Amino acid sequence: MNKKAIGFLDSGVGGLTVVKQAMKQLPNETFYYIGDNARCPYGPRPAEEVVQFTWELTQFLLKKDIKLLVIACNTATAVALDEIRKRIDIPVVGVILPGSRAALKYSSNHRIGVIGTKGTIESGVYEQTLRDKDASLKTYSISCPKFVPLVESNQFNTSIAKKVVFESLQPLTKLNIDTLILGCTHYPLLKPLIQNVMGDDVYLVDSGAETVSEVSTILDYHNIAADSSGEKIANRFFTTGSTKLFSEIATQWLGTNHMLVEKVNLLENNH
Amino acid sequence: MNKKAIGFLDSGVGGLTVVKQAMKQLPNETFYYIGDNARCPYGPRPAEEVVQFTWELTQFLLKKDIKLLVIACNTATAVALDEIRKRIDIPVVGVILPGSRAALKYSSNHRIGVIGTKGTIESGVYEQTLRDKDASLKTYSISCPKFVPLVESNQFNTSIAKKVVFESLQPLTKLNIDTLILGCTHYPLLKPLIQNVMGDDVYLVDSGAETVSEVSTILDYHNIAADSSGEKIANRFFTTGSTKLFSEIATQWLGTNHMLVEKVNLLENNH
Repeated sequence: MNKKAIGFLDSGVGGLTVVKQAMKQLPNETFYYIGDNARCPYGPRPAEEVVQFTWELTQFLLKKDIKLLVIACNTATAVALDEIRKRIDIPVVGVILPGSRAALKYSSNHRIGVIGTKGTIESGVYEQTLRDKDASLKTYSISCPKFVPLVESNQFNTSIAKKVVFESLQPLTKLNIDTLILGCTHYPLLKPLIQNVMGDDVYLVDSGAETVSEVSTILDYHNIAADSSGEKIANRFFTTGSTKLFSEIATQWLGTNHMLVEKVNLLENNH
Repeated sequence: MNKKAIGFLDSGVGGLTVVKQAMKQLPNETFYYIGDNARCPYGPRPAEEVVQFTWELTQFLLKKDIKLLVIACNTATAVALDEIRKRIDIPVVGVILPGSRAALKYSSNHRIGVIGTKGTIESGVYEQTLRDKDASLKTYSISCPKFVPLVESNQFNTSIAKKVVFESLQPLTKLNIDTLILGCTHYPLLKPLIQNVMGDDVYLVDSGAETVSEVSTILDYHNIAADSSGEKIANRFFTTGSTKLFSEIATQWLGTNHMLVEKVNLLENNH
């Protein structure tokens, strides 16, 4: 039993889709979240830069005393997970393996689509992970570079979003896939629009929900899950960008009335 | 990377529902299965006896050189998992935590039903596990002692089965549960009948499918998953009971044409 917080990091607000699932599935746990909104999106950035930014966010969370780290960002998981695991001695969970596992569980026809940022799709990490697990799978990937800016600017419920999602996903609609991995934690905020374009027969894998199942497994495996006894430490949310915009999106997405969001200067905190 | 087999044990054929999911989600892996059909069912037996039988099956599988053990039986998981974990040094996965986690993921109204054998339900292990994870959950459990004999005698598709399932589940149909844990690995063979009685709005948690996700997580976490390179070792199926009856149920359930089932005498093997 361990009451310490679980740390979540993301390029911006996308990882909140993972936190939302964590609040549902792990109500005894405390969550510390940092979004690097000032430097979002990570998708188009070179890998070395994403590794460096991820490391800075990790150091920030470690100083807050966390028991497990979730890299709640597909781009960062794709390029930085192995490196971060080497550098720190608490369990580190990424979002790519859980999403891939879920796709294998849900797909019947072995035809799986993947959408993600430019960085994630160009890394080929989902195709590689899926093929390693089952060489008979057919995968179809496209990058959707316009999706993250839509979410980060709080426009994910607009008619512009509807149009962008429709146009972006057209190449995937005629490939007879039965499962689509939302390979970016920002995308569940666009889920109704994506489901509408893909049709009800395509199962959408929310990597956030699946990642939380993995977090729960690892907590139990190491016997470090919190129980419901005693006082619970409050959740904390940090951003390198605008606390106002972060708070607007977070309260809407998490369904809370009020949220204190703390502004972070990584340079000050890490030195 | 590790090509050794994953071992599965069960009181009879029920654990084959877990193997079926494992074949789908982990096609690179090899599976060794032992069903203790001669001494099935475990549900009504005293706990000490179930621990002893589980230990005998574990020893049998260890001699075949396995890398991970799945206790694919809820009754055995309820009473023997902790003890087996203490005695052996490979990872051991049970079926109760994965099913409980999945129920938390799928339930919206926090009202969860559990069905299982007499031993599982009387142990209270599901209520305890669910309440530990979320004290706000309401759980409703009933034992269904007639289900396992129906499956073991290959009568799970009959009108008798339909009648037994209907009568057994009546107490659960008016409790407004939105999720029902099939807390016995035999029960997925009765899934269509159970779904019919409970209605389409109740999500049925197949603990087998969920357990395989956990197995996959643990394999990746320890870096002992098999890849698709080279020759794969063949699956093997063992029973302490009738190889003919086992084979009939197994080929039907797993959708294979032919299956070699090996007869085991545990006394000879373990001494």
